[in-house]
Amino acid sequence: MKYKINNIYIEKKFIILNNFLNKNKYNISKVILLLDNNIKKYYLKYFLKKISILKKSKFIIIKSGEKYKNIKTCIKIWKKLILFKIDKKSIIINLGGGVITDLGGFVSSTFKRGIKFINIPTTLLGMIDASIGGKNAINFYNFKNEIGIFNNPILIIINKNFIKTLPKNEILSGLGELLKYGLIYDKKYWNFLKKIDFNNYKNIKWDKIIYKAILIKKKIIDKDPYEKLGIRKILNFGHTIGHSIESFFLSKNKKITHGEAIALGMICESWISKKIKKLNNNEYEEICNIILKYFKIKIIKEKYFNKILNYIKNDKKNYNNNIYFSLLNNIGKCSFNKKINKTLILNSIKQMNKIYFLKKKKKNEKI
Amino acid sequence: MKYKINNIYIEKKFIILNNFLNKNKYNISKVILLLDNNIKKYYLKYFLKKISILKKSKFIIIKSGEKYKNIKTCIKIWKKLILFKIDKKSIIINLGGGVITDLGGFVSSTFKRGIKFINIPTTLLGMIDASIGGKNAINFYNFKNEIGIFNNPILIIINKNFIKTLPKNEILSGLGELLKYGLIYDKKYWNFLKKIDFNNYKNIKWDKIIYKAILIKKKIIDKDPYEKLGIRKILNFGHTIGHSIESFFLSKNKKITHGEAIALGMICESWISKKIKKLNNNEYEEICNIILKYFKIKIIKEKYFNKILNYIKNDKKNYNNNIYFSLLNNIGKCSFNKKINKTLILNSIKQMNKIYFLKKKKKNEKI
Repeated sequence: MKYKINNIYIEKKFIILNNFLNKNKYNISKVILLLDNNIKKYYLKYFLKKISILKKSKFIIIKSGEKYKNIKTCIKIWKKLILFKIDKKSIIINLGGGVITDLGGFVSSTFKRGIKFINIPTTLLGMIDASIGGKNAINFYNFKNEIGIFNNPILIIINKNFIKTLPKNEILSGLGELLKYGLIYDKKYWNFLKKIDFNNYKNIKWDKIIYKAILIKKKIIDKDPYEKLGIRKILNFGHTIGHSIESFFLSKNKKITHGEAIALGMICESWISKKIKKLNNNEYEEICNIILKYFKIKIIKEKYFNKILNYIKNDKKNYNNNIYFSLLNNIGKCSFNKKINKTLILNSIKQMNKIYFLKKKKKNEKI
Repeated sequence: MKYKINNIYIEKKFIILNNFLNKNKYNISKVILLLDNNIKKYYLKYFLKKISILKKSKFIIIKSGEKYKNIKTCIKIWKKLILFKIDKKSIIINLGGGVITDLGGFVSSTFKRGIKFINIPTTLLGMIDASIGGKNAINFYNFKNEIGIFNNPILIIINKNFIKTLPKNEILSGLGELLKYGLIYDKKYWNFLKKIDFNNYKNIKWDKIIYKAILIKKKIIDKDPYEKLGIRKILNFGHTIGHSIESFFLSKNKKITHGEAIALGMICESWISKKIKKLNNNEYEEICNIILKYFKIKIIKEKYFNKILNYIKNDKKNYNNNIYFSLLNNIGKCSFNKKINKTLILNSIKQMNKIYFLKKKKKNEKI
C-alpha cells in the first residue's frame, strides 16, 4: 500500500478492505453490496475473487446510468434492505462510479436514519471526486443532485487496477475534474498535469496523479465540510455552466460525460473570469489550449439559451434570485460568490461556440 | 418569556420568532410555511396575525394524518420547493404536530443537501418529544420512521396557547411520553406528574411540565446525539412493543394515538423489566396504576401475535437477528441493549390482555 489520506486508501490488492471485513472490529452484522448491471458484468467476478468473504453477502443490482440516479431507485433499494432484514449495524458497500456512490451514500445515510457505508469507486471520476467529500445525492426532475445530504463513508478504497479497464471517454471524464483541481488551488499540479499525455492513458502512473488530486480536494473540504463558509464552493468552478450543459444534453438524450461538460463549463467560466478582469489573457488561452487538447466543443444553439439559463438559475450556489459563480483569479487561485449577470453568462457560451467555428475554419484552411 | 433551553424557547407571544424573522441576521432569502389542512383550518389565521411578516410567504399545505408521513408527500413538497425557486438560503417553518415536524425536518435536511428549518409544534407530543432531538423521518411501507436523518432545526418555538385548543386524546398522547421521561430518568419528575390530574388538563400549568420534560430529553440526547453510544436508546422505553401496537392498529385502520400506544407498550415492557428481575413488583404496580388512570387497554388477540412480532423484529434497536429492549431497573433508571426472547415478549402482551379482563370483571362485579 502506497498512499493513505485519513480513511481513503489507494491500494492494489484490497488488503485494507479484506482486513476490515475479516477482523470486523465494528461488529458489523450484515454486508450488502450495491452495484449496477455494468459493474456486475465486468467487475463482480474479479471483485469477489479478491474479497472472498463477500461471496456470502447479499447483492443489490440496479440499472446503470445517470438517469437511474433518482428517487424511484432509492425506493427500490430501501425496500430490498427491509426485505434483507438489514439492521443498524449492517454496512453497504457501494461498488461503482459516481452514480453508485452518490446514490448508495444517500440511501445508506437515510435508511433507519443512517447505516455505515464504504465507497469503492471504479471510475477515475469516482476516485478523484464523486466518492470523496461526503456529498451524497440523487437527481430530481432534471435537476442534478437536488436531493441529498452530507455524510462520509467509513472507508474509501481506491484501486487503480480498475482504471486500466476503462474506455477513453471515462478517462477524459475524470480528467476534466483533475484539471479543475490545478486551476482552482494548485498551479504546480496544473503544470504537472500539463506535461502528461492523457491520450496515452494506459501507460500513465496513476497513483501520484490520484493521490495529489485527493489531497487538494481534502484540503478544500476540510476547511468547509458542509459548504457553510463558502470556501468549498471553489470546487464548483466550471460547474455552474458545466452542469447546465450536462443537464441540457442529457434532457435531449445526447451523450455527454460529466468531465466533458465541466471542461466546456471551465472554458466558459474562464472567459467570464477574464471579462471581469481577474484572469489575464495568457492564462485564459493556456487553459483553453490544454482543455481543447483533450475535449471537443459541443455547439449550443442560441435558441436553447433560455433552457440553459433555466438550469443555471436553479444552481445550488444561487440565492436572492441572483446567479453566483466561482471564478479564477489566476491559475491556482479561485474566488467564490461572484454575482454574474445573464448577458455575460450567455456571451461566454457564444464565445465557446466561436472557438468551435474558428477551429473548424483553421482545419478547413489546412485541407 | 419564561423558559429557554439552547435554541428551544417556551414563549407565549411569538416575540422570539418575530425578532428572528424581522431582524434576519442569517440573511434568509425566502420563508416557506409547511402545515397540514387541519392546522390551516384551526391555527393559520391566528398564527399569521401573530407573525404578520409571514403573510408574504409561500405556504405548502399537505393532508393531515400519520398516513401521509411518507415518501410520496416528500416528493410533492420537494417539487413545490423547486417551483417556488427555493434556494439554499431559504428557510422552512414546520407548523404542526409530529407528522409535520418529522416530515418537514426530513424534507428540509435533504433539499439541496439541506436548508435551514424551524419547528413550531402545535401538539403536546410535538412540544415535548417529536420536535426536539434532531430525529427527522418518514414512514416507509408500514415501518415507522424507517427513512430519515439526524439534523436539528435552528429554532424551536413552543407556545402553550396551542395546548388549550387540543382535544383530550391529543393531551393523552403527549402524556404517554411525559410519564416515560419520569420512568426512565427522573423519579422526582414521575412523582411530580403523579400529583397532577391530567383529566382536568385545561387548568394545568403547562410551562413547568413541558420545560422539565424537555430538560430531561435534552440531557439524554446531549450524551448521545446520533444514538451511536446507545444511551439515547433509553428514550425508546415502551416503544419496542408500543410502536408495534401503533403500527398494527394503524394497518387495520383503527385509531390509536402515539402516546396511547407507548403507554400500553410501557405496561408490557415494565412487566418484562419485572420478569428479568430488574423492576420490583411494587413499582411495576405503581406504573400500571398511573398509566391506567388515563389510558384504556386495547386487547390484542393471539391470532395477531405473529404480526406484532414482525413489527418488533424490524425495530431499529435490533441487530444480528436478536430483539433488544430498553428496560427499567427502577422508576427513574433505565438500561438499554437488553436481549429479550419472543416468548417473554408475547407473554407481556398476554399479561396486558389479562389486566383488561381483570378490570372488566371487577367492573361487572361492582354492577
